[in-house]
Amino acid sequence: MEFTDMSKYDKIELARWVVKKGKQAGADDISVDVIKDRSISVDFRDGKMEELKESSQNYLSLSVYADHRYTSHTTCDLNKDSLEKFISEAVAMTGYLNEDPYRSLPDPKYYKIRNDIDLGIHDDHYYDVTSEQRVKIARDLEAATSALSDKIVTCNASYSDSRAEFVKINSNGFEGERQSTYFGVGVETTVKDVHGGRPGDYDYIGSRFFKDISSLERLGRTAFKRAMQKIGQKKIESGVYDMIVENRALTTMLAGIRYPLTGSYLYRKNSCFENKLGEKIASGKLTIIDDPYLKAGFSSQLYDNDGMATKKRALFEKGVLKSYLIDWYYSRKLNMEPTTGSESNITFALGSRSPEEMIRDVKQGIFVTQFVGGNSNSLTGDFSYGIVGLYVKDGEIVHPVNEMNISGNIMEIWKNLAEVGNDPYQYSSIMRPSMYFKDVHFSGI
Amino acid sequence: MEFTDMSKYDKIELARWVVKKGKQAGADDISVDVIKDRSISVDFRDGKMEELKESSQNYLSLSVYADHRYTSHTTCDLNKDSLEKFISEAVAMTGYLNEDPYRSLPDPKYYKIRNDIDLGIHDDHYYDVTSEQRVKIARDLEAATSALSDKIVTCNASYSDSRAEFVKINSNGFEGERQSTYFGVGVETTVKDVHGGRPGDYDYIGSRFFKDISSLERLGRTAFKRAMQKIGQKKIESGVYDMIVENRALTTMLAGIRYPLTGSYLYRKNSCFENKLGEKIASGKLTIIDDPYLKAGFSSQLYDNDGMATKKRALFEKGVLKSYLIDWYYSRKLNMEPTTGSESNITFALGSRSPEEMIRDVKQGIFVTQFVGGNSNSLTGDFSYGIVGLYVKDGEIVHPVNEMNISGNIMEIWKNLAEVGNDPYQYSSIMRPSMYFKDVHFSGI
Repeated sequence: MEFTDMSKYDKIELARWVVKKGKQAGADDISVDVIKDRSISVDFRDGKMEELKESSQNYLSLSVYADHRYTSHTTCDLNKDSLEKFISEAVAMTGYLNEDPYRSLPDPKYYKIRNDIDLGIHDDHYYDVTSEQRVKIARDLEAATSALSDKIVTCNASYSDSRAEFVKINSNGFEGERQSTYFGVGVETTVKDVHGGRPGDYDYIGSRFFKDISSLERLGRTAFKRAMQKIGQKKIESGVYDMIVENRALTTMLAGIRYPLTGSYLYRKNSCFENKLGEKIASGKLTIIDDPYLKAGFSSQLYDNDGMATKKRALFEKGVLKSYLIDWYYSRKLNMEPTTGSESNITFALGSRSPEEMIRDVKQGIFVTQFVGGNSNSLTGDFSYGIVGLYVKDGEIVHPVNEMNISGNIMEIWKNLAEVGNDPYQYSSIMRPSMYFKDVHFSGI
Repeated sequence: MEFTDMSKYDKIELARWVVKKGKQAGADDISVDVIKDRSISVDFRDGKMEELKESSQNYLSLSVYADHRYTSHTTCDLNKDSLEKFISEAVAMTGYLNEDPYRSLPDPKYYKIRNDIDLGIHDDHYYDVTSEQRVKIARDLEAATSALSDKIVTCNASYSDSRAEFVKINSNGFEGERQSTYFGVGVETTVKDVHGGRPGDYDYIGSRFFKDISSLERLGRTAFKRAMQKIGQKKIESGVYDMIVENRALTTMLAGIRYPLTGSYLYRKNSCFENKLGEKIASGKLTIIDDPYLKAGFSSQLYDNDGMATKKRALFEKGVLKSYLIDWYYSRKLNMEPTTGSESNITFALGSRSPEEMIRDVKQGIFVTQFVGGNSNSLTGDFSYGIVGLYVKDGEIVHPVNEMNISGNIMEIWKNLAEVGNDPYQYSSIMRPSMYFKDVHFSGI
């Protein structure tokens, strides 16, 4: 059952009407997005506090191109009288800006989207899920997890789902639409540490389909085990050690190499990857493929934010930088081919061993399970991050570690990538496996 | 001129109608917020790229209390047919939750708001500001700043303003409404550093009134001076030094002592301030007053998120912890008096000297201008933050510093607060002056 009765076709009609009104008001070109989404989340804390939150919205985004000038506008008042005023004022505002010859809609030759592909990102049974089921999932997971041990101090289980509809029209010949659903469940626990403090950890799953939200008790067991492993955290001596980064933590380090790939960083000469296309940046173990067509992927899409058709392509291949992330606007400013401005699903060439197997090879090192704080300089490549993890000696976990930093440079650490795990993270569009780096500089805080 | 024609009175009528419909659908009590806001921002980059973005929204938030159960819901579809369905489904969902005897609307005795006070948070000339003026402010500031020096590599000037209207009704006898405006201008520059990298910094002003957005050239000069001061950043030897924290940077450290004051942290036994009301936590120099009635303050308000009347009160007085931040729900769970769940304007007892004057007393120390990353444990009080600043020796600035951390414990560092500056930060609701701390542990990363 829907909260508003605007169908996909109504939204396409509305977007076409906005294009017509924008042109009548004096725009040369118009891009319109009409978006509807609804999300529901349920939280259970410590058997004592429950929350159900629901959020539902419709909104319209409008980009105006007039006399080589450009502005963008968003409203959630979709009443046609209000919209007509909104559109004419938006076009009038555009006149106050200076000309920017690089602002335009994409060349329509980039609009040939692969309509033959079914992305599998919508659960047609979304409306069959009841709030009774939503509540029961979070309640049962909280109860099962809390019952695991009297060492648990706090436990928070949550369920969420969402459904979104998107329509996009560019006035020079693009029309696209997409519907997607998402379901996620997670649990966090904290445990008593007699040394002081209260270490905590979590586990999480997500899917495009409700049927995949199953076997949830293991989430509680994993969250509890991870929290218990943090009891007695301490520093080790500063020095150069091996580092295995658990898949869930790796996003922090990946952000350091993703931002410098973008058109805006390159244009502002703020990228350590400038003029490095085709060069070897990382060890041969690093292959990153952007795959927009992945079935049920969390960022699967046939067209990008500009309306340009997406393509499967390598960003890094055996360590060699193969592609930047260039949207339409920066392609014109940089005089480069557009490649889409952001990634879809980020996938990796996998290795054959699990992190547990890789740990057995470590003479002395740290298995990093979380990064906390820190930063990475996109121009110089220098980075420093706080870490939490487990100290490993002669292939065995010795004790948990915190209050340490790693530091180094992007151009060096990725060359020290010695092995890639066989465990891609399943619950994010960044499907990174665990990774083993040699010779990383650790220091106590 | 308004984008939608719903007046303050229409919103109050709508909220009353929602209360009536919610009760008809079976709710015992209803809380409704109707919010309308509009914001416009203009960005100029390097004389080459301009952006004007506008966003306009109306939305309604609904809290349902039924049979000691509670849920919350948000929608931006304010059509009455859609709303009627939304409300009845919201009330039905509430039935699936367990009872929570602590969920209720506040006792109406807390609703006596000070309607005699004019907060001065709305600029009645908001609609006289034209987009031509908005664009000119950002364009002129970018041009004036870029012209300051050929050492400037990038320059980004931005202007933004917003106007919001709020109506809140609780079905047991509260009705409140408020309108506010906001105007802000900032500029960021980066400069070339021959040692590598490209240090950058910013300056910013904001006000409730458009007339205060003046004398903007000084923003560019300050941003440029601050960026130039970062050229040649390096570490110093790890050790215990004096630290003066510049007012703009201090929010990071203040967050460490604000979260543990809240009801949710206390209830979850995750607060280093549990059972410490009336105890001396900090040096006698620390007095923090929460002032909801500050004329033109950025968080001035007559009632809080629950609808309870705000009060001016001390959080810390001469180092002694005077008040927690307890909203209605946690007041019932913790069996304490409610004090409002979040602060309004945070003001400080000031000292008599500027940071420049305090620096002259420093034998050896660091003037911290930014914190980068790090974290603070709300239960143990342990913290660690990355810092950027200036090394000071015998009262003189020697060279810029980066890649260092400070670490310590909340219960110790605030006792080492030796002096408070005379320079409250004017452009935030957290009006913190610069502060001088003795004996802080610094370490290189």
